[in-house]
Amino acid sequence: MRAIVLASRPVGTPSRENFEMVEVDGEKEKLRAGQVRLRPRWFSVDPYMRGRMNDVPSYIPPFRVGEPITSEAIAEVIESTTEGLSTGDLVRAHLAWQEESVLDARFATKISSDPGMSPTYYLGAMGMPGLTAYVGLFTVGHLREGDVVFISGAAGAVGSIAGQIAKTQGNFVIGSAGSDTKIDELKQLGFDAVFNYKKSAPKDALRSLAPNGIDLYFDNVGGDHLEAAIGSLRNFGRVSLCGAISQYNSTGPTPGPRNFEGNVIRKRLEVRGFIVSDHQDERVAFERDMAGWISSGKVKVLETIYEGFSSLPDAFLGLFSGSNNGKMLVAL
Amino acid sequence: MRAIVLASRPVGTPSRENFEMVEVDGEKEKLRAGQVRLRPRWFSVDPYMRGRMNDVPSYIPPFRVGEPITSEAIAEVIESTTEGLSTGDLVRAHLAWQEESVLDARFATKISSDPGMSPTYYLGAMGMPGLTAYVGLFTVGHLREGDVVFISGAAGAVGSIAGQIAKTQGNFVIGSAGSDTKIDELKQLGFDAVFNYKKSAPKDALRSLAPNGIDLYFDNVGGDHLEAAIGSLRNFGRVSLCGAISQYNSTGPTPGPRNFEGNVIRKRLEVRGFIVSDHQDERVAFERDMAGWISSGKVKVLETIYEGFSSLPDAFLGLFSGSNNGKMLVAL
Repeated sequence: MRAIVLASRPVGTPSRENFEMVEVDGEKEKLRAGQVRLRPRWFSVDPYMRGRMNDVPSYIPPFRVGEPITSEAIAEVIESTTEGLSTGDLVRAHLAWQEESVLDARFATKISSDPGMSPTYYLGAMGMPGLTAYVGLFTVGHLREGDVVFISGAAGAVGSIAGQIAKTQGNFVIGSAGSDTKIDELKQLGFDAVFNYKKSAPKDALRSLAPNGIDLYFDNVGGDHLEAAIGSLRNFGRVSLCGAISQYNSTGPTPGPRNFEGNVIRKRLEVRGFIVSDHQDERVAFERDMAGWISSGKVKVLETIYEGFSSLPDAFLGLFSGSNNGKMLVAL
Repeated sequence: MRAIVLASRPVGTPSRENFEMVEVDGEKEKLRAGQVRLRPRWFSVDPYMRGRMNDVPSYIPPFRVGEPITSEAIAEVIESTTEGLSTGDLVRAHLAWQEESVLDARFATKISSDPGMSPTYYLGAMGMPGLTAYVGLFTVGHLREGDVVFISGAAGAVGSIAGQIAKTQGNFVIGSAGSDTKIDELKQLGFDAVFNYKKSAPKDALRSLAPNGIDLYFDNVGGDHLEAAIGSLRNFGRVSLCGAISQYNSTGPTPGPRNFEGNVIRKRLEVRGFIVSDHQDERVAFERDMAGWISSGKVKVLETIYEGFSSLPDAFLGLFSGSNNGKMLVAL
């Protein structure tokens, strides 16, 4: 059985050298009572995993060198010693990057097989990225009717959902992305205004697309996007700080938004960071709402799916070069 | 009658040249019904007034060149055509810097003459700076029992009150100030830990005074204080952005806090700016609480009082060179 381990910790932008494919001892672990043997069908790769490659304890522990990377996955039950799960069931679980895993059944969540709902959605729109978008807009960002909402990295797994959720509430939604292809996708998803940040500085783009300012900034990018948003926000505006992919590979202190204090005080801004795992109590409401939006066609799901176990590192690295439209996945 | 007008707009740090003393026509304006003639006894000077010297519309309009500066004052009624106010009453009002003013009575608030309460307190601890401290801690900063609270510019009008309010709630309170004399004053006010930011960088001081981090940062200073606080804050920490006196005289973009995004997301920080005038609805509760704290000796009032009408510009300029302990006032 193959596994992919962290070979070394990256300094700056990670590369294929930080990953190593290894053969794991073939002898099969026997199941204890209440366990399942899982064969992953799709792995998720997510930007937050970059933080786990550093040797810095945070809200989630670092990966260990020489041990498998882990990420969320949809897996098939191939053996079970628990009543709730049977061979053939599909579950969502956090799994090691290896071709099979044994897991206590309580760490696996059976996913429903609604018509029109691909199992992969439970890694994206119906899963962690979708919940992130939901929490970031409503709970953290206090989304209000009539808000002008700006979402950076809008073609990503979280951004593409956040923009569409904001549209369900009747808001004017502006999105940024890093290629013209993505910009076209965002238009098709119903974004009201879009810009390619490799062609227009966020500051200039906001000035022209939101001449009267924005009310809520959902930040996936950081850096010049955050600074531009702080300049554009109206009185009592809000920033929902979800991610800062422009900063994840930086190796030293990064310049902060200039004139931060003056704008935040004068315009009474509220800037809040959040981590989705603090908000599990909102999952039930989120799944109900999101299932409704997907089935009514109000939220469309974008996915980029790489093929084959060995493409896991490339899929992950692709997150930082903008290779994904929507949720990045690897199908095994 | 003398008045002090804005002679020119400062670029960078203001100076005496930006002010001019002028003689105003001696002919006495006749009172209409419902008006009072006021003789200011004490004028307040406050850091926020620096913003009004710029030609930039904000939440409060700019001063006009050639017209008197205005600020809060305690004044004596010397003539009245309204029932509610009589000659000899003391009122709080926003007044022009001139030796007499005529005002609609509805813009003047009679102050009570409780024993142990100097009229000047209504410009400081019992007035706008006190309400600012109260709102910034409770409403904006969500002050909680057991919080480690850090207050910058702690010897100022707002900071000296904020620190003592936090102490009334049983918190551990750290304060920074810019001179050893002020540091001694803060110790006498009951601050648990203090540092002179001209001798220790805020980052180093916090590392040694709050080795396990802080929970709430009440910012009056900005710049390296804000950056140090963001580094020190624990999970779910809060920043109450009240002022940024280190930035008020800057003439261009100022460097923002470095690694802002990473810390705010990872630690789920909440950063909020506020302006006290949005919070008038809290004034009743504030006055009740503050009167109690003052009369019980839990809050002590620090004042620096300059003498004479002509010293108004120097008192104002002194705010930016750290000349005040507590509330800066001018007695006429």
